[in-house]
Amino acid sequence: MMNIHILSLFPEMFTGVFGTSILKKAQEKEEVRLNIINFRDFSGNKHNKVDDYPYGGGAGMVLKPDPIFDAVESITDKSKKEPRIILLCPQGEQFSQKKAEELAQEEELIFICGHYEGYDERIREHLVTDEISLGDFVMTGGEIAAMAIVDSVVRLLPNVLGNSESHELDSFSTGLLEHPHYTRPVEYRGFKVPDVLLSGNHAVIDNWRREQSLKRTLERRPELLVSANLSVEDKKMIRKLKGE
Amino acid sequence: MMNIHILSLFPEMFTGVFGTSILKKAQEKEEVRLNIINFRDFSGNKHNKVDDYPYGGGAGMVLKPDPIFDAVESITDKSKKEPRIILLCPQGEQFSQKKAEELAQEEELIFICGHYEGYDERIREHLVTDEISLGDFVMTGGEIAAMAIVDSVVRLLPNVLGNSESHELDSFSTGLLEHPHYTRPVEYRGFKVPDVLLSGNHAVIDNWRREQSLKRTLERRPELLVSANLSVEDKKMIRKLKGE
Repeated sequence: MMNIHILSLFPEMFTGVFGTSILKKAQEKEEVRLNIINFRDFSGNKHNKVDDYPYGGGAGMVLKPDPIFDAVESITDKSKKEPRIILLCPQGEQFSQKKAEELAQEEELIFICGHYEGYDERIREHLVTDEISLGDFVMTGGEIAAMAIVDSVVRLLPNVLGNSESHELDSFSTGLLEHPHYTRPVEYRGFKVPDVLLSGNHAVIDNWRREQSLKRTLERRPELLVSANLSVEDKKMIRKLKGE
Repeated sequence: MMNIHILSLFPEMFTGVFGTSILKKAQEKEEVRLNIINFRDFSGNKHNKVDDYPYGGGAGMVLKPDPIFDAVESITDKSKKEPRIILLCPQGEQFSQKKAEELAQEEELIFICGHYEGYDERIREHLVTDEISLGDFVMTGGEIAAMAIVDSVVRLLPNVLGNSESHELDSFSTGLLEHPHYTRPVEYRGFKVPDVLLSGNHAVIDNWRREQSLKRTLERRPELLVSANLSVEDKKMIRKLKGE
């Protein structure tokens, strides 16, 4: 079972996401334990202060090192193996499927979520093992980023996804964008399902889907084609799509 | 006031995030209205079915067009202006701060969240105005992505952030990664705050911070320097940091 600990000043933010769908099931199946810690409990002072003014002046407050070091060590003191300690921050490495797969191999993860405040640099330099950012956009805090990462990691754990849920992963793992999907009705507001999908000829359908997948990737994310696993047929199709 | 509508089969996922911190305050201040719609209510059949098998075969289910079209139109029927209709999917444009700023100008946004299923292609082609992805990683559904986008958009609305909360945005808007922050204690476990920050000389502190910010950007995200707004002094500093 993987142990995931989340340090946050807003533990109540996690209830909805952690209590629903795959994350709920994964906990019920005991594939993961999700533990939320309010690091204000480690403030060590009677006003429960976890932040202070920045040295050198400036706007905004900074999260103090001691409550976060102490909260992390309350976990690592009991760990058999060194856990990954992940700081969520805009300066970090951009999260990716490769990183999700890497984290899914670990036994224990600790996430540190700040909330519209800076982190004291000593947390970054002397405590954490990874700094991760969700992307080049600013959020109020690290909580939603932690949810996104936990979701993408936990769904990779063994026995978590059923057959009906796993197809998207398979498709992503080809390194291409997905082909279009259609379901009933066969005609909706005048828009029809492509004839090929109704043909019953599976070789032709597979071929069409592969072409659509290559076409969409070429149009929207051509850089993905560089690292995708392409057959000779795929390359021929790409040349055709490019009009070469 | 901005109106944000979210179509999801798991409305309970949003309670924690939408009821806390900035998103809670923004609703109390009536700067935003967050409305969650379970599109299962628009299934139009007594089994409340919103998905079906894919035409052409294959694993996984596909979200039917009719419940989603109907749910969206139940909103747009009352809209004064055409709202942005955003599909959350891995094939979409990568979300960015620029996109957050663009969406923050709108009066009404509709987010469509699938959950480990494909979308019928007609939703993509004939209903939505934007397709957005959070990044190159797979999540169970669009809900957490919607939360991330709503958070980054709402914090940009007028009167939502207080002074103490807005500094991070300012720093991000320079196009560089942030400089290190330090707060008390001045020495923690033998690790000291840099002397310059204790000097009281603001010109020297500003200079040090700018250098640190350039250094971190150069080390971690050198591509950001291309589009950052750099002074002659900055460029000189970068050449020095590069050892040129």
